[in-house]
Amino acid sequence: LKKLVIFGVGLIGGSVALALKKANFVTHIVGVGRNYAMLERALELGVIDSLSDALEANIHAACSGADLILIAAPVAQTKAILQSIKPHLQPQTTITDAGSTKNDVMTIACEILGAQFNQFVGGHPIAGAEKSGVTAATADLFVGKNVVLTPANLDDIQDDALRANNHAALRASHIARVTEMWQKCGANVREMSATNHDAIFAAVSHLPHLLAFALVDEIASRPNAEELFSFAASGFRDFTRIAGSSPEMWRDISLANKTALLNEISAYESELSQLKQLLKNDDGTGLQALFERASVVRNAWANGKK
Amino acid sequence: LKKLVIFGVGLIGGSVALALKKANFVTHIVGVGRNYAMLERALELGVIDSLSDALEANIHAACSGADLILIAAPVAQTKAILQSIKPHLQPQTTITDAGSTKNDVMTIACEILGAQFNQFVGGHPIAGAEKSGVTAATADLFVGKNVVLTPANLDDIQDDALRANNHAALRASHIARVTEMWQKCGANVREMSATNHDAIFAAVSHLPHLLAFALVDEIASRPNAEELFSFAASGFRDFTRIAGSSPEMWRDISLANKTALLNEISAYESELSQLKQLLKNDDGTGLQALFERASVVRNAWANGKK
Repeated sequence: LKKLVIFGVGLIGGSVALALKKANFVTHIVGVGRNYAMLERALELGVIDSLSDALEANIHAACSGADLILIAAPVAQTKAILQSIKPHLQPQTTITDAGSTKNDVMTIACEILGAQFNQFVGGHPIAGAEKSGVTAATADLFVGKNVVLTPANLDDIQDDALRANNHAALRASHIARVTEMWQKCGANVREMSATNHDAIFAAVSHLPHLLAFALVDEIASRPNAEELFSFAASGFRDFTRIAGSSPEMWRDISLANKTALLNEISAYESELSQLKQLLKNDDGTGLQALFERASVVRNAWANGKK
Repeated sequence: LKKLVIFGVGLIGGSVALALKKANFVTHIVGVGRNYAMLERALELGVIDSLSDALEANIHAACSGADLILIAAPVAQTKAILQSIKPHLQPQTTITDAGSTKNDVMTIACEILGAQFNQFVGGHPIAGAEKSGVTAATADLFVGKNVVLTPANLDDIQDDALRANNHAALRASHIARVTEMWQKCGANVREMSATNHDAIFAAVSHLPHLLAFALVDEIASRPNAEELFSFAASGFRDFTRIAGSSPEMWRDISLANKTALLNEISAYESELSQLKQLLKNDDGTGLQALFERASVVRNAWANGKK
């Protein structure tokens, strides 16, 4: 790539920049954002090669001649960023993002980009970290991690004229470019529909986060909360680690993936009610069988991940 | 102490032995158990000074002249072990255990020991580890960890003659001996009733274990389980770590602490139903407030623990 533009140079955007520089995959990286001090820090650290604020006039220069634009700002800003890019979006440029939910992002992108929707390839790198900000960025954050791509679905485009404009070959070249970018970061790229993505992550990520938040909130609300926490140990620490995550980010994810998440909560409530019934019936065999199924699967999974 | 007898020389029993040897607190440690090969390994490793199988005749010799007997075998064996000790229990000997639930153990001890119930001091060291067995034992397993003691409650003894036999001064000396043993291991000793212990651990340990088992079992039961697990990442790994725990042990703990645990599940179900309602109502402010309460408390707790 000759020119990569990154909106939001934090942990994710910064780590992509560092990985691509290490792989010699890109000649020039422009950082764009509302936090000018953070961008200056990124420039100092050699994460980006130039910077731009988010003013209309400067967006034009930043996006001009770009091969690829990566939106790695908080998801709540995606709409405004796409709107600011739209008037300056050249036909050869590919746009991708790094948001944790995809149906909402794809809907917004379709609405704003219209006939240029096929230039947009939704993305979600499955790599978190305790820390945030460009100072926590590392070139190896995505090595061995999954990245899900959710390319624009032509069926999402209602307007026939717009559909006609979305050539399959062009669409494939945009997908290939984003795939290559993540592969150069060391990631495993997997493609699926936004709906399938959101259903999968409701189960393995969003539900566990909500369950952990709920447990801590429930215990914290008790009169003897302080005594309870004083006896909580390492099992509690690991179980609740994700309850220390950003409240704003999880509000946005929960609302964006509401339908899938409500289904997951209901399925979990049924499971919990089964477990409760086994306990009420003193059904030791049934309890042990349930725990056995879970522990075998969990340990096999964890060992396979190593 | 001149003589300490440990029933069950695994991770817990072995670590107590190593810690007390390091502290020069005990002259002679006898290991007793059904697994002779494990005891021989413990002897080889210098964890114990002599060993004995669990046969009646040998229990007499093992317990003779003991200052302290620690039962650190799986909780399901506690009753049989107490029954085997009872005929050989001398008045100067203190007995304690290391089980994760206390009401059940105290009830069994009261039933079996009768007039000698005041020699029993229930105990629960709050120190787990991924590994088990004597080869995983270390002298510092309990350093800085909590140990809860639940001494015999005179109110638990219905028989007046037995009650008269339970002198306060004697009782205090047994508690002091167990307290000192754990302090020599580097632990913080806290005393409470068995009922209070079981209520606290139902909330901060037993419930989280059941929630983690339930999540993994629920996901594993789906037709696309393999796909789901292939996208699970580090948050899922930490949340479900305790779902890899021993199914037998958690069956026993669940049944032993059934009443408190059922209360905890119900309280959690209410919290989950509140969360679901916030989501149904698209109540972003309410969701963020709940997540914020949880994350602030969780991070303050985790930072305080360091």
